[in-house]
Amino acid sequence: MDARILLDHGEGGAASARLVREVFLAHLGAPAVLEDAAVVEGGARLALTTDSFVVRPRFFPGGDVGKLAVCGTVNDLAVMGAVPRYLTCGFILEEGLPVADLERVVASMAAAAREAGVSIVAGDTKVVGHGEVDGLFVNTSGVGFVPAGRALSAGACRPGDAILVSGPVGDHGTAVMLAREGFGLETDLVSDCQPLADLAAALLAAAPGTRCMRDPTRGGLATTMLELCEASRVGMAIREPAIPVRRQVRAACDLLGLDPLFVACEGRLIAVVPPAEAGAALAALQAHPRGSGAAHIGAVGAGPARLVLETALGGRRPLVALEGAQLPRIC
Amino acid sequence: MDARILLDHGEGGAASARLVREVFLAHLGAPAVLEDAAVVEGGARLALTTDSFVVRPRFFPGGDVGKLAVCGTVNDLAVMGAVPRYLTCGFILEEGLPVADLERVVASMAAAAREAGVSIVAGDTKVVGHGEVDGLFVNTSGVGFVPAGRALSAGACRPGDAILVSGPVGDHGTAVMLAREGFGLETDLVSDCQPLADLAAALLAAAPGTRCMRDPTRGGLATTMLELCEASRVGMAIREPAIPVRRQVRAACDLLGLDPLFVACEGRLIAVVPPAEAGAALAALQAHPRGSGAAHIGAVGAGPARLVLETALGGRRPLVALEGAQLPRIC
Repeated sequence: MDARILLDHGEGGAASARLVREVFLAHLGAPAVLEDAAVVEGGARLALTTDSFVVRPRFFPGGDVGKLAVCGTVNDLAVMGAVPRYLTCGFILEEGLPVADLERVVASMAAAAREAGVSIVAGDTKVVGHGEVDGLFVNTSGVGFVPAGRALSAGACRPGDAILVSGPVGDHGTAVMLAREGFGLETDLVSDCQPLADLAAALLAAAPGTRCMRDPTRGGLATTMLELCEASRVGMAIREPAIPVRRQVRAACDLLGLDPLFVACEGRLIAVVPPAEAGAALAALQAHPRGSGAAHIGAVGAGPARLVLETALGGRRPLVALEGAQLPRIC
Repeated sequence: MDARILLDHGEGGAASARLVREVFLAHLGAPAVLEDAAVVEGGARLALTTDSFVVRPRFFPGGDVGKLAVCGTVNDLAVMGAVPRYLTCGFILEEGLPVADLERVVASMAAAAREAGVSIVAGDTKVVGHGEVDGLFVNTSGVGFVPAGRALSAGACRPGDAILVSGPVGDHGTAVMLAREGFGLETDLVSDCQPLADLAAALLAAAPGTRCMRDPTRGGLATTMLELCEASRVGMAIREPAIPVRRQVRAACDLLGLDPLFVACEGRLIAVVPPAEAGAALAALQAHPRGSGAAHIGAVGAGPARLVLETALGGRRPLVALEGAQLPRIC
């Protein structure tokens, strides 16, 4: 195999065939690469989602763009209550990219797909000239099966509901930022990037009345909760001392003037559950290895749609949507 | 709405919400943008496919990257005998891109989706810094329903089968190349970019024994046929005088030293049909507005897997896979 990606690897000829055979098939098994689409067993109700991943750097503590691309799309299906089944992946590569980097990313996708219980069934590779894309971008799209009767929705939150989070927030965004910018900080912090389908299933088994789940990626916990407030036309209050934030995340965010509540997670879920199921839901999360740091962080109140942070000192601080990012290109 | 794309438009905050509302929802209707995945009606057998589109320039005679992204993915489903149903779209945008360009692309996707009978049900937008991507790349992934008993495959071609093509080849690649490079050539040539689901359905109704269909995109007619030869372990012979090539395509290719048989189409299909159905298949293609230029161009023979061009003068020229592209970034 060639050492670096060439334009020819994306053009459908002999070089493309070599790349598919020696990199993609070698790691991902044998999807129907000679066909224009994969034909798979279906289901009565489907969840569909798509995400592109442009994280910089492409390898970071706790993961890489490939693991992230699988987990991100799997998690978008899982939080809808779907059983993730199939992924497609679309690479856009820069001419000159080391093939070893691509291979490492593809191997990581394969491992994450195995962990998440999904099959990568179709793919596509485009190569553009040097300087026309920053290295390697990947899109994953996902198909999940939605069990009959399941209807989770961002618009389903009701006053009195409990708000849970499955673990410490802000790990992913902080780990990527530190990997990118350095700042000379020594830290053992790693991204929380992980697939959440099994955790979501455990939660739904324990708390079948769950109103909605979300994975707080771009914009972090606060942005995601603001979206739920808007969609359900309710207020929400979260208690600052109850929200799990790792010491290293707090320290890095303090130093850089960031709010960890707006920093991305890639392996956490927020769940809004009816009050009668809050205890069972929290216990189910905490009993699962992916949710051992889960906490009950707040409650849904009446409208208007707004999010309030109750501080340790008894203050009430409104959290409002940021115009954009604290940290670009973290996913 | 802002005039240019900012990093903030991709970060999930207020600017992202504005972009979604004022550009995506305005043109694409109202998919479940507040959820992490769309939930849709399913089917017993699914066809899944994905493609990223990096064509340069993004607007060209007969289409643009948005129309291409919808047609390309719809066609990959259609040639598998599936009924295309749902698309997802994932944009990667460069900071500074004129929002008017994005809006024009999105409007074009909406029009192409209507024409193709598919719904765009989920989307994602990432923005990267100036110089980190060349303007606008888009991934579309597609889901189609495969009727019971339908089993088209690149590996199903048999000696004696007829080879049909639904219209002139090489229009798309040539039109894009001329739009990009100019060469001072005056031409009215436009891309053949169009959705083929209805044409494929008409063909299958007339020739239910059809072995396989393909849309000859990257690498053109010859590369696609070489893939069929490999997959079916058969030889194929095509008759040069029978292959429809527009005068303008032939002239431009002659000038530039390209072989039109290796230049991409984006609105043609190749069909391999059993000999008894060849007449009905050709008549069905020619009777359809998208296939009026269809032709019977050759036949499948015994192995080994190779493709031979029979020239007008009676010569037999083997066609072999190119290492890569004649024309990069044509889709």
